[in-house]
Amino acid sequence: MPYTIGVDFGTESGRALLVDVADGREIATAVFPYPHGVIDQHLPGSSKPLPPDWALQDPRDYLDVFRHTIPAVLKESGADPRDVIGLGVDFTSCTILPTKADGTPLCVLPEYRDQPHAWVKLWKHHASQPQADQITETARRMNQPWLNRYGGKISSEWLFSKALQILQEAPEVYAATERIIEAGDWVIWQLTGVETRSACMAGYKALVQDGHYPPSEYFAALDPRFADVVETRMQTQFAKLGDAAGGLTAGWAALTGLREGLPVAVAIIDAHVANPAVKATKPGQMVMIMGTSTCQIMSSDQLSEVDGMAGVVMGGIVPGLYGYEAGQAGVGDIFAWFVNHAVPPEVHAAAQAAGLNLHEYLEREAALQKPGEHGLIALDWWNGNRSTLVDANLSGLLVGLTLGTRAPDIYRALIEATAYGTRAIIEAFEARGVAVTELIAAGGLPEKNALLRQIYADVTGRTLRLAGSAQTPALGAAIFAALAAGAYPNMDAAAEAMGKLKDEVVTPIPAHQAVYDALYADYKTLYDYFGRGANDVMKRLKAIRREARGGME
Amino acid sequence: MPYTIGVDFGTESGRALLVDVADGREIATAVFPYPHGVIDQHLPGSSKPLPPDWALQDPRDYLDVFRHTIPAVLKESGADPRDVIGLGVDFTSCTILPTKADGTPLCVLPEYRDQPHAWVKLWKHHASQPQADQITETARRMNQPWLNRYGGKISSEWLFSKALQILQEAPEVYAATERIIEAGDWVIWQLTGVETRSACMAGYKALVQDGHYPPSEYFAALDPRFADVVETRMQTQFAKLGDAAGGLTAGWAALTGLREGLPVAVAIIDAHVANPAVKATKPGQMVMIMGTSTCQIMSSDQLSEVDGMAGVVMGGIVPGLYGYEAGQAGVGDIFAWFVNHAVPPEVHAAAQAAGLNLHEYLEREAALQKPGEHGLIALDWWNGNRSTLVDANLSGLLVGLTLGTRAPDIYRALIEATAYGTRAIIEAFEARGVAVTELIAAGGLPEKNALLRQIYADVTGRTLRLAGSAQTPALGAAIFAALAAGAYPNMDAAAEAMGKLKDEVVTPIPAHQAVYDALYADYKTLYDYFGRGANDVMKRLKAIRREARGGME
Repeated sequence: MPYTIGVDFGTESGRALLVDVADGREIATAVFPYPHGVIDQHLPGSSKPLPPDWALQDPRDYLDVFRHTIPAVLKESGADPRDVIGLGVDFTSCTILPTKADGTPLCVLPEYRDQPHAWVKLWKHHASQPQADQITETARRMNQPWLNRYGGKISSEWLFSKALQILQEAPEVYAATERIIEAGDWVIWQLTGVETRSACMAGYKALVQDGHYPPSEYFAALDPRFADVVETRMQTQFAKLGDAAGGLTAGWAALTGLREGLPVAVAIIDAHVANPAVKATKPGQMVMIMGTSTCQIMSSDQLSEVDGMAGVVMGGIVPGLYGYEAGQAGVGDIFAWFVNHAVPPEVHAAAQAAGLNLHEYLEREAALQKPGEHGLIALDWWNGNRSTLVDANLSGLLVGLTLGTRAPDIYRALIEATAYGTRAIIEAFEARGVAVTELIAAGGLPEKNALLRQIYADVTGRTLRLAGSAQTPALGAAIFAALAAGAYPNMDAAAEAMGKLKDEVVTPIPAHQAVYDALYADYKTLYDYFGRGANDVMKRLKAIRREARGGME
Repeated sequence: MPYTIGVDFGTESGRALLVDVADGREIATAVFPYPHGVIDQHLPGSSKPLPPDWALQDPRDYLDVFRHTIPAVLKESGADPRDVIGLGVDFTSCTILPTKADGTPLCVLPEYRDQPHAWVKLWKHHASQPQADQITETARRMNQPWLNRYGGKISSEWLFSKALQILQEAPEVYAATERIIEAGDWVIWQLTGVETRSACMAGYKALVQDGHYPPSEYFAALDPRFADVVETRMQTQFAKLGDAAGGLTAGWAALTGLREGLPVAVAIIDAHVANPAVKATKPGQMVMIMGTSTCQIMSSDQLSEVDGMAGVVMGGIVPGLYGYEAGQAGVGDIFAWFVNHAVPPEVHAAAQAAGLNLHEYLEREAALQKPGEHGLIALDWWNGNRSTLVDANLSGLLVGLTLGTRAPDIYRALIEATAYGTRAIIEAFEARGVAVTELIAAGGLPEKNALLRQIYADVTGRTLRLAGSAQTPALGAAIFAALAAGAYPNMDAAAEAMGKLKDEVVTPIPAHQAVYDALYADYKTLYDYFGRGANDVMKRLKAIRREARGGME
């Protein structure tokens, strides 16, 4: 009865899942919320406010996750720790921290603990935007070939944007930093004593392409003091997904109840870990991790520079295949905005009378309509456009409003808009020869909303299936743990045995597809008009707004 | 102590106002709701449903208004009926009915009372759209010169659209019809025994230009049976505004308590009666009657074919000047839509806690913002576009939405959008050499909403004043009664003495104007793009919607 444990590190908490290696059966799970949560107001023990767009964490919280959740799942399951053959981790990314050469985080040292730059910068720390702009512009000017592997634009979330912010804003912290490392790699280092760099994290977040970082001339052009950032503070070897990073130390064996030397898998990004958990290891199987935003992850045997993708990395998801990432900046967030801020009391009352929450009620009412019946089209850019256009300054649009427009009409139009956004991403892939053959959705949003599932199938013209586990990332981490333990010869075999899909296959309805093809053509016209420079009104509105607010967003 | 009485016939009720001729002081008022209201479900005494877009009335209800309200204002005021020197009437238009040669409405005759086409067709009866389309297309094909005096498009609301519908759908009713007449002209006929045709109603609603209807060849081209519609069923003399149509009959004197022979003024359209009541009788003074929709009425000494205006009529408002009409199809309607269907419970609760209604609360919150701060622009076409583009198939648009957008943001953007719509009308006038120098607003909307007043001034760059009376149309009718009685030598003198403006003069704020100039430029770009054929998505959405609804709107 061999088991593995997958540990999924999210934004607010960590979750362990103990899994049967034979069939992926989920035996026990435990969650531990980070005691310090997201640090975005002020540092612990300080009343000094952090600037806007900062988001920090305390790395000790991550270690507490192992301490609490692993004993908990062992206890709950009654599993013999000797039957646990591997441990895997997925982590939010790019979440980085500065450490000493032995892995000690700077923020735990008394001399740096009052210095915000010494702490973990969480993925959603967006205060590095000026650095990201500089990184993109410098790369464009220097014709850096890797730039197109990232859709032509480097995010404020990524490693070198955050590292350059440390250098520019706190050179003394930067000077004291001996390692800049992803939190996912850091926890593996803590567990095993071995410093590794996940090929997945390095590829998607640290500009590593074909085994190399950008050259030092490039970093020097950003800042002369940054020229040796790779040589002095990174590793230049990358650990392959599915390999073991090392064995569990005696100390961590004692703390967790697991055996010393237990294989610990190379870390992987939380979005990218899902594919084997939903059996999507073949080219063309696009996994959509849908929540407040959507992340599209897919493998292909074709290398292509897809317009506006987030990144392509050889072996970034499945060894031997190119792993593609794209994303939509607002999905569940847009529906939540609508439900929270634009639905009148009478609809709240009707939902309550029907014993449904607002989402359920609006879904039920919207599902009574035929495609096109509400007469609306939306552009799904409430939170900007992440992939294809890669422009945070775009905004939402709604057209077709009449005095007869009601809440279920808009709710349906917003779901459709996010499906059109997915179709635009699919078309961007296929325009560059990267086929997308089917969709697999993970997350509570598609699981709860049958109308959404059907609309996505109808709009994209592709079958849609649902993740079979409610803990897709943790299950994925457990699959990587099984690979690291050598329980399966390759990822396909592991995913086939341990991955899970629901039985339901949502198939496009031809009559719906015909209407949605027409509506999508109009979506695309609006998309091009507002998104590609013909009319930059969205950007002008944001500029006027900034001006009116005295320069603040 | 001479008095006049003005009677204002609205959509749901009639109102009498007894006014002091010397200074326009309002002494007494009384309202009488039409017993049959708007007949849009089925005829009285019948259960047979009327088709969609029908709106009928019972003409006897209008006579009841005189019977009830005139004695009421005499009683309330204690005025000696001998001191009442004139009676005036304004009426919704185009509201028409078929009668016999003596004025008997067909619908009161037993043989026609089950026939919907025998009843009054209220202004908002829109089932004559096919006839209106035929009238416009035929006029265009035959190069009828009067077409451009109506912005190139004839409304389903107008006289010949409705008359042609009777002919085409109920030829037996048409055959029995000896007069087709505006309800306003018909009530004057009842009061005085004299059939007249108001130059105002004939000009704006019955295609009379330069003293003539379109030629009989034109009517023959619509339908051979329609060739003699003017000769057989209309009058070809037109009664000048401010003249007396005749004297009150003995019968009506007895019914109302007024004296026999009392001068009764020529009828005038309810929107067009406002100008003297707000002292706006000079060229360039644009009166905006703002309610669910807005009607812009203005005089000019220039004759011009302004793009998309509703109509221009010599002497249509002020004798000797060209009277222009334009309109916005949705104004208060759009704000009501928003407040009723898109404001969340927490805002309702906050308004209640503040002791304000929702409009007041949203106005207060929106007024805290600077122009442009919400980052939104709307196109104010929820109910189509009436003037400038004259296209009922346009629809509303909202751009700039983000996850931070809140109800007061959208509320303010909608007010601004209607102000941009007004500016587009003003610019259409000025582009054809018809100057617009100041704005005077009438109606509850501008009276209640100070933010709206300031936004209109800021967006249009013109001073804005408010009507001084809460009963502007009835006061206007009383002024025409004074003119008919010969109490004043001309309309300017009557308006100066009896018209009323509030003291407040709303002046544009230069810093706001600068921002609104920029935002209006973007409004206009969107207006052209969506309104002038570059992208007909709004029309395609309506077509797809019709299709999805099985051909129904």
